[in-house]
Amino acid sequence: MAEFDLIERYFTFEYDFDQHSNDDDPKQASTKKSTSKPRVVKGIGDDCAIFDIPSKYQLVTSTDTLVDGVHFFSDLDPELIAHKALAANVSDLAAMGAKPLAFTLSISLPEINEYWLAGFSKGLKKASKRFKVPLVGGDTTQGPLNINITAYGSVKKGRLLERHNAEVGDDIWVTGYLGEAAAALELQDKALVREEALTAAESELWQALTRPLPPLEFARKLTKISCCGLDISDGLAADLGHILSKSQCGAKLSVESLPISEALIEVVGLEQARQYALNGGDDYQLCFTASNKHRNKILNLAERCSINVTRIGKIHEAGLQLTLNGQPFESNRASWQHFNQ
Amino acid sequence: MAEFDLIERYFTFEYDFDQHSNDDDPKQASTKKSTSKPRVVKGIGDDCAIFDIPSKYQLVTSTDTLVDGVHFFSDLDPELIAHKALAANVSDLAAMGAKPLAFTLSISLPEINEYWLAGFSKGLKKASKRFKVPLVGGDTTQGPLNINITAYGSVKKGRLLERHNAEVGDDIWVTGYLGEAAAALELQDKALVREEALTAAESELWQALTRPLPPLEFARKLTKISCCGLDISDGLAADLGHILSKSQCGAKLSVESLPISEALIEVVGLEQARQYALNGGDDYQLCFTASNKHRNKILNLAERCSINVTRIGKIHEAGLQLTLNGQPFESNRASWQHFNQ
Repeated sequence: MAEFDLIERYFTFEYDFDQHSNDDDPKQASTKKSTSKPRVVKGIGDDCAIFDIPSKYQLVTSTDTLVDGVHFFSDLDPELIAHKALAANVSDLAAMGAKPLAFTLSISLPEINEYWLAGFSKGLKKASKRFKVPLVGGDTTQGPLNINITAYGSVKKGRLLERHNAEVGDDIWVTGYLGEAAAALELQDKALVREEALTAAESELWQALTRPLPPLEFARKLTKISCCGLDISDGLAADLGHILSKSQCGAKLSVESLPISEALIEVVGLEQARQYALNGGDDYQLCFTASNKHRNKILNLAERCSINVTRIGKIHEAGLQLTLNGQPFESNRASWQHFNQ
Repeated sequence: MAEFDLIERYFTFEYDFDQHSNDDDPKQASTKKSTSKPRVVKGIGDDCAIFDIPSKYQLVTSTDTLVDGVHFFSDLDPELIAHKALAANVSDLAAMGAKPLAFTLSISLPEINEYWLAGFSKGLKKASKRFKVPLVGGDTTQGPLNINITAYGSVKKGRLLERHNAEVGDDIWVTGYLGEAAAALELQDKALVREEALTAAESELWQALTRPLPPLEFARKLTKISCCGLDISDGLAADLGHILSKSQCGAKLSVESLPISEALIEVVGLEQARQYALNGGDDYQLCFTASNKHRNKILNLAERCSINVTRIGKIHEAGLQLTLNGQPFESNRASWQHFNQ
């Protein structure tokens, strides 16, 4: 199959760009096309994709690769691989508080496996709809399975989450529940043979690993309240570490406050759950800081976005101190490293 | 080595963004920072890269992957692999007449080979300088060697080269010399052992394959004259075919007009040279159409940009007719397909 046929068959989704660019504003959506919002001008089919970025906005972009055997197991349902690849990338947009505009896909495939491609395409289309982000271009090549996505988003100028903006005294927050994805890796042998064999609690962890849902809407609206945050894809301790080093400050975390689901405790026990919550990768949740005067606003916003947020500590002058009920707490794992050598 | 150390050591180049954004305008470069030009606001070190795109401009983006054994030979000097990866991507920007702004690199590496990485990094830095395009982010992962680059550029609104704008009666032009890269593939066994063993003519072809220089400046300025073009990376016949199908027209090409270098004729003979010029891939030159009233302007622009341009035919109503001195000419090869199945 030629590259163009392959793109036509599996990677060309219909998408209403105008609807997309206006989905925040029902008044505009029902009237004529707005040119005041960032939008995709040209998608698949030419050498490049083209974006219109009105002067009040900036374009934000992020790129991430998933490699067979490193970031996923090739015998995983291709629909889930596609979901995860896109989720990991929109999570980087959420990390900055950006609104997704579009994404491109560069995929290397060892062969044309129509069953695999159909599943992958289905998953990508669903995720594209779910995250409201159209596929606008890319590249297909022959080679060992390698999935690279570049995601494009927009922010209003000056309204974004950055790593260097934490201030001493700020609260530290996280979204969602932590550690489930890392724990789910232990379940892969069982899950890959027959997902139905998992218990209800195990299944919840498996969902967190294979179908992550980054808090996009919350992140975007959070930029009205906070200007410091990132996504937790390398583990809370490691990623919070980036905030601390870029902001030149420290933090105190209360381990007993970490949001840990009942499912995780049921499967691995509380002690191990805390280690996963601190050091496990693949969470695709948000860690952010904010002045304590914004606590209610943050809780209200989370409720409106139907997500969970938890205050887990405070920014201090220096160092990262972990306590459990007031006593020093020892973390027992190094965070995820891409090259374990 | 951790991902962050690796990025710090090999993929963090110093770059003067302000100088970059003003390099068209010496007056502005010497005064204070301009905000009227598209520019990179944030580069490596956060979750995303950020671009400022003034409202007169649009952001153009393209992504391309090079896979070991498909697009290059892994025993090729890593400096050349890096050059080629970036050249292939800026060529897609040239294809639209865009000015490069920045690029991101997603690279999968089977292992940390410091010799290889140092060479790749050196080549990437040189190419980055040559094409005036800074590295602003990316991703490193462990896996079979796979190099993905996304390039970002800008165009003034409405001032770009597109595939669907050819009109009956237009001249068809190409830049540079064609077919050298495809012919050079035949030389790889000799060249990879000892590049010095090549004859002067062979060496010229090898340069075309391994150190392509897309006509970026020419392409950008061409948008004042033409609005139809693309880059020839899949072979002239195949890529011109895209213009014809998108513009719903045909073409007559004079095979005797194709720009073929003396070096190519010396190495493979005139007959084979013509086949390579028509169907060989990897040329990274431009094919464009323009009204015949612009012939002098085009020749003058090419001279100012120190590149070669050649008029090779005309746009007609339908079909692609090849003639050699007035007689029908038979092309003997299918164009490059990414999946040869």
